[in-house]
Amino acid sequence: MRNSPGYDVYSRHCPARLVLDRLADKWVLLVIGRLWDQAVRFNQLRRDVDGVSQKVLSQTLKKLERDGLVERRVYATVPVTVEYSLTALGRSLAETIESFSHWAERNINAVLAAQHSYDAANGEAAAE
Amino acid sequence: MRNSPGYDVYSRHCPARLVLDRLADKWVLLVIGRLWDQAVRFNQLRRDVDGVSQKVLSQTLKKLERDGLVERRVYATVPVTVEYSLTALGRSLAETIESFSHWAERNINAVLAAQHSYDAANGEAAAE
Repeated sequence: MRNSPGYDVYSRHCPARLVLDRLADKWVLLVIGRLWDQAVRFNQLRRDVDGVSQKVLSQTLKKLERDGLVERRVYATVPVTVEYSLTALGRSLAETIESFSHWAERNINAVLAAQHSYDAANGEAAAE
Repeated sequence: MRNSPGYDVYSRHCPARLVLDRLADKWVLLVIGRLWDQAVRFNQLRRDVDGVSQKVLSQTLKKLERDGLVERRVYATVPVTVEYSLTALGRSLAETIESFSHWAERNINAVLAAQHSYDAANGEAAAE
């Protein structure tokens, strides 16, 4: 893989490695993907990202806000409305993430078939 | 985010979610990226992917082999040579991963700046 000049994710102390580590998280990928085309409220996000807990979603959003990828807007309604949306930086990342999620959806059958072949050839013990 | 027909990473029981979960791993991204353009021996991989332990690299490669993304070739030299390379399926994923790693390298400065602003506005305690 070619590297951009200056930073190198292959070097353990490079800050780009930290970013990769942060982004390589299922919930991060799903949350950013969900915010792709619109601002979404916390409770709606929690419903849409099936299986995420309130605590993990809250932590994920806080980290993404700190990273400058997600923007949090509070509206003075009763009760208060809190909406999350992507920043320009987050949108640039979302395009990359979208192709990642689509790869998973498109190629799941090939992956499952490979797993079956592997397990058949190596015995169930190898199935991790 | 638009979904491919049939599978949906947003659904917790969908197998595509499992694939996303597997791929959302720093070491997986780095190993697949390193194999991008050539077959690489185990020890070379370990040196190139700075910071990975022998055990984690070995587990990562085994999972990727089971998923049909990486191919393991053994050559009957003395000592034995073991080389890893991408399968066609792995190569299709590598293109997506490359843009992900490049995003991290290109945008690390913007992320670090956002983190500093956030911490300054929220106090050090929020810096996690």
